[in-house]
Amino acid sequence: MHIDLRPADAGPRAYRLLTNLIVPRPIAWVCSRDAAGGLNLAPFSFFNVMGSDPPIVVLGVGDESPGKPKHTCRNIAATKEFAINLVTEDLAARMNLTAADFPEGHSEIAAAGLHPAPSTAIETPRLAESKAALECTLHEIQRIGGNNLIIGRVVSIYLADAIVDERMHLHGFFPIGRMGSPSWYARTTDRFEIPRITYAQVRAQETDGAPEIVK
Amino acid sequence: MHIDLRPADAGPRAYRLLTNLIVPRPIAWVCSRDAAGGLNLAPFSFFNVMGSDPPIVVLGVGDESPGKPKHTCRNIAATKEFAINLVTEDLAARMNLTAADFPEGHSEIAAAGLHPAPSTAIETPRLAESKAALECTLHEIQRIGGNNLIIGRVVSIYLADAIVDERMHLHGFFPIGRMGSPSWYARTTDRFEIPRITYAQVRAQETDGAPEIVK
Repeated sequence: MHIDLRPADAGPRAYRLLTNLIVPRPIAWVCSRDAAGGLNLAPFSFFNVMGSDPPIVVLGVGDESPGKPKHTCRNIAATKEFAINLVTEDLAARMNLTAADFPEGHSEIAAAGLHPAPSTAIETPRLAESKAALECTLHEIQRIGGNNLIIGRVVSIYLADAIVDERMHLHGFFPIGRMGSPSWYARTTDRFEIPRITYAQVRAQETDGAPEIVK
Repeated sequence: MHIDLRPADAGPRAYRLLTNLIVPRPIAWVCSRDAAGGLNLAPFSFFNVMGSDPPIVVLGVGDESPGKPKHTCRNIAATKEFAINLVTEDLAARMNLTAADFPEGHSEIAAAGLHPAPSTAIETPRLAESKAALECTLHEIQRIGGNNLIIGRVVSIYLADAIVDERMHLHGFFPIGRMGSPSWYARTTDRFEIPRITYAQVRAQETDGAPEIVK
């Protein structure tokens, strides 16, 4: 079946299909500040690392009403920075609470029983409860139709002592992933490894008469 | 521990930390064509949906050598389109094979025992073996340092009959996610649901003297 997304009214169908097909998605639990210093916290799964030279992340944030980007996007436009907290399963319920439709002036952080902790390279705090956080400065916000693509540069990383060893290798860090709508998540504990292979190995398999790859 | 990523030589450290922290990542197995019609196939996990109005995806693709973007990026720049195939576990080994360092002229598709199938809205084929594919046109390639951000518009979606019902709801579709380096993946079969809550519900919990959210 082919579903044409070019008609002007295809947006809702596109949202439902793309959020169910493009999974699992990493979750950015974003702290941002308004010009007066007020803190906002909200989760987004239209998010990923997009490069490391320099280290770049992209967040896709929609409009709260037509033409008015969501609070997180307006804050980042104002202060040019944000902190991305990563979400392990123990924080899932509190993350979900901060996705509620809080009015301005009521703190998601306090309501969820969370606490801000100082960042080192930006003024916006991270969450004390999160085991890892990315301090970001704004590279650019690109608006495409009703979508706001927030391109950020990661300037510093916070890692809790519990997940990192002296060689700076991570241990026991299993964030949850966002699955389809309306509200499903996946654990990342059921893992498997597939060693990368080289072109020389591919050629050797073909020469042996085994072009199909079996495990 | 805080790790400063601002020094000019922080790239390799940033790559290792960000690919282990920002997980699980969805996988785009990208078919692209060069100007002469030659097909390329390669997997990327710097990828996500970034909005639905219009439907936008972003791919982060690096350079193959300094200043020379990888083959997939050069193809997309030339033909302004690409097909993203989604990856379920049955395709994992073949996807991994297509990540090898194939020289130009040797088809990853044939070597992996895969077959192209016609797209409907673009000239670039999808993979016949993939249960879902996104036909994309190029919106823009944005170069940031040595990173190439490919912003695409999804113009059509292919769904295999086996994963979709007559109401266009998906069933039994569990793509794998990319985990940390060098070569780990996660299944998405271990899932849990957290119903979204409203601000009114948050307020009611607070009034009940239960500001901490449990489950």
